[in-house]
Amino acid sequence: MKVAFLGLGVMGFPMARHLAAGGHEVAVFNRTRVRAERWAADNPGRVAATPADAARGAALVFTCVGRDEDVREVVLGPDGALGAMSAGAALVDHTTTSAALAREVAAAAAARGVGFLDAPVSGGQQGAEKGILTVMAGGEPATFATAEPVVACYARAFRLLGPSGAGQLAKMVNQICIAGLIEGLAEGLHFARAAGLDAQAVIDVISKGAAQSWQMENRHGTMLAGQFEHGFAVDWVRKDLGYALDEARRNGAHLPVTAVVDQLYGEVQDMGGGRWDTSSLFARLERLRDVPRA
Amino acid sequence: MKVAFLGLGVMGFPMARHLAAGGHEVAVFNRTRVRAERWAADNPGRVAATPADAARGAALVFTCVGRDEDVREVVLGPDGALGAMSAGAALVDHTTTSAALAREVAAAAAARGVGFLDAPVSGGQQGAEKGILTVMAGGEPATFATAEPVVACYARAFRLLGPSGAGQLAKMVNQICIAGLIEGLAEGLHFARAAGLDAQAVIDVISKGAAQSWQMENRHGTMLAGQFEHGFAVDWVRKDLGYALDEARRNGAHLPVTAVVDQLYGEVQDMGGGRWDTSSLFARLERLRDVPRA
Repeated sequence: MKVAFLGLGVMGFPMARHLAAGGHEVAVFNRTRVRAERWAADNPGRVAATPADAARGAALVFTCVGRDEDVREVVLGPDGALGAMSAGAALVDHTTTSAALAREVAAAAAARGVGFLDAPVSGGQQGAEKGILTVMAGGEPATFATAEPVVACYARAFRLLGPSGAGQLAKMVNQICIAGLIEGLAEGLHFARAAGLDAQAVIDVISKGAAQSWQMENRHGTMLAGQFEHGFAVDWVRKDLGYALDEARRNGAHLPVTAVVDQLYGEVQDMGGGRWDTSSLFARLERLRDVPRA
Repeated sequence: MKVAFLGLGVMGFPMARHLAAGGHEVAVFNRTRVRAERWAADNPGRVAATPADAARGAALVFTCVGRDEDVREVVLGPDGALGAMSAGAALVDHTTTSAALAREVAAAAAARGVGFLDAPVSGGQQGAEKGILTVMAGGEPATFATAEPVVACYARAFRLLGPSGAGQLAKMVNQICIAGLIEGLAEGLHFARAAGLDAQAVIDVISKGAAQSWQMENRHGTMLAGQFEHGFAVDWVRKDLGYALDEARRNGAHLPVTAVVDQLYGEVQDMGGGRWDTSSLFARLERLRDVPRA
């Protein structure tokens, strides 16, 4: 199938690779062109000069960029993808955005007879490299059915969760669940150290029971080792939590702990940790204790 | 072996049963005597009139009562177990207490040549019934070695984590990790409902990834069904978090989210939910939305 992939970041780069490896005819666009050329050096596919150029003639156009405004630019802007797409084609946006943006783009696409799925992913860079992402989608079942076999090139799970926006809202639920969880884990390890315990031995015991989590299993070691140069960056989780807190303000949900953890992440940014993994909430707790007390 | 079990609550009752079934000669004591008589009706063993009466001649004395003051009464009080114990015997306290209480009782026991382990458990009523508890211990290795084969009657894991108090401190780490985690899960489900999502479908997707936890797997269903008459009661988790927050004040650890969640549990108590499972943090979030706005 003729497809386009717009946005070759740490996620998009390997996702587009899986599409090419899956036999699809891929046109790629990236704002920093040299990265698209690097991609094309190793993969069959065409480097396009603009989103519109990439999208022309494609049955499916994928986007994986930064924020709401980046999606707007690459899809709706001058030289945006939508203007070059034919009725019957479809757009799949893998960016994590607001639900409002998803509905806005869906409406603009529908006006031209183009399908749209908001389809944020989870699974991180490793999931993208291995082609085992989880994709949460919102949109029309017909569009979902068209995209499904193609998205399968890089996703282990691809689920339609409701109308436009539902994918983004589901991703917000994911980020809300993780926020309290990861700060709880950080506080537990911080307490263990302050109490003079062998934190690793404690984790070995409690990770079999009601405190168990993916984060505990996969992040306690790097937390205790003070390694944060990996994983999902604090700058990005703050973007996601911002969308979730905005949405909660509109829909009447109360997120007291999520709101606090968002603030704590702001302090990690102030420590210079914007690019650190989300588990650096532990660094924040430990760092505070090193501040000299006059 | 001749043993005593003091405190036949929802945990102690089945734990003492496993000891009797394991061939040990068990004397039991319970403040409300009728409960001890009910135990003895179904199990081989003797009902004692006082803790001292139960402990006399026992090589190991187990306690599983409520709070610091209950342990003090049953071990150190008039008619307490310690006064009746011989040098070389040992006390194993399964109550979740402060670390300071563990050190206090250990010192009193040592003065009489009696060993002591602080040994709080996790795994809940179900774990006690099935004999598959996890036990976190603090104390001397020799005492641990003596207790190990007997505790194995009701524990799947029994780990010595350091000197007296270390078992209680490890249990606090467990409770700290769970506090943020469970409020995060509650906020995620509450947001999902407010956003009009199919919360079950969302959990099906996100429980495969970085948001996964034992609590998500085992409590999302009862949360969404509004079932809270089971599991680990809010009144008890507040006791445990109180000990953890006190300890953190002493050892210099900062627990911002744990402190907030403790307050939220206080609001659940005000709702009449003191006996509800800890997952009733979800009920608190949902209930708030039902308050009429004038």
